[in-house]
Amino acid sequence: MKPENGKNIKTRVVFHLDADEEKRLVMALNNMANLLKEVPPEEASVCLVANGSAVKLFQREHGAAKNARVEALAGKGVHFLMCNNSLSNFNIDPDQLITGCTVTKAGVLELIERQADGYAYIKP
Amino acid sequence: MKPENGKNIKTRVVFHLDADEEKRLVMALNNMANLLKEVPPEEASVCLVANGSAVKLFQREHGAAKNARVEALAGKGVHFLMCNNSLSNFNIDPDQLITGCTVTKAGVLELIERQADGYAYIKP
Amino acid sequence: MKPENGKNIKTRVVFHLDADEEKRLVMALNNMANLLKEVPPEEASVCLVANGSAVKLFQREHGAAKNARVEALAGKGVHFLMCNNSLSNFNIDPDQLITGCTVTKAGVLELIERQADGYAYIKP
Repeated sequence: MKPENGKNIKTRVVFHLDADEEKRLVMALNNMANLLKEVPPEEASVCLVANGSAVKLFQREHGAAKNARVEALAGKGVHFLMCNNSLSNFNIDPDQLITGCTVTKAGVLELIERQADGYAYIKP
Repeated sequence: MKPENGKNIKTRVVFHLDADEEKRLVMALNNMANLLKEVPPEEASVCLVANGSAVKLFQREHGAAKNARVEALAGKGVHFLMCNNSLSNFNIDPDQLITGCTVTKAGVLELIERQADGYAYIKP
Repeated sequence: MKPENGKNIKTRVVFHLDADEEKRLVMALNNMANLLKEVPPEEASVCLVANGSAVKLFQREHGAAKNARVEALAGKGVHFLMCNNSLSNFNIDPDQLITGCTVTKAGVLELIERQADGYAYIKP
């Protein structure tokens, strides 16, 4: 799923979470898992942008099932992008995030630029 | 509203519901009704994708006002597309759905493909 | 931020609110403020469409902090577009709206047309 600008990328989508609601995270992870059953990973570019209090959901918790699900999807090429403004607001250090999460300067700009690049937007 | 790829289709939109919340369904139906007052049906392609627990909202209920509203909009060409993964998860048989609803293999893929085809996305 | 169709407009985004939930308004205002720190205002076209009960949030309240935030963003070129159908439903006169808000005939159509014009969609 790496070369995101490659011509073979047919399926582009950005999921958006902005609230600290576990059920929405589960919905997003289910959506991604269902999607990757339907399309070959090498033809897809899938990412999730978390801003606002949703960044709290991506803090590593000892033994949490969500850690494993996020890590497994990241291993399949899904990008989990955390808004740096929001991390600062909630005093979350990037080191506390689940493995596979990366930091983006401004979540809102990431959402806009992805859509300008042809990514579909889905708000679970 | 049928020939969705026709050149005369100027207004394309996909509404998305993914939660079993009646008020969001009402909002979506109101949005569609308002829209079809503004644009000629033959120039519009309007659909709604339901996944997650939102598929429960489209079960036929004896005498429910929503049955009639969904059927009336379907009669005007609106497509109500139910995610098959979600129907299976909630043990809903397609026969239980309001007339005019159809089944799509994966709701999330339908949302992505519609947007890639130029449909606007609206999450009520 | 005025000439919305100018070639220099690189960042186009429409925010959507459709519920009378203060915390979502705050999120939208924060998103816009963060965005305008990242992109030069003259290269951005930013708007917010409110329909459904969200139009209630934009009634002027004596001394409310949100009045000042909306007015300040409007002063930077953000367009706050209120659905006329929704204003009528809730018996809100345009005169009651915060300065800087304008009325659009149908919010749903505004959302569709903006996206057709290349605006990204964000639902806080």
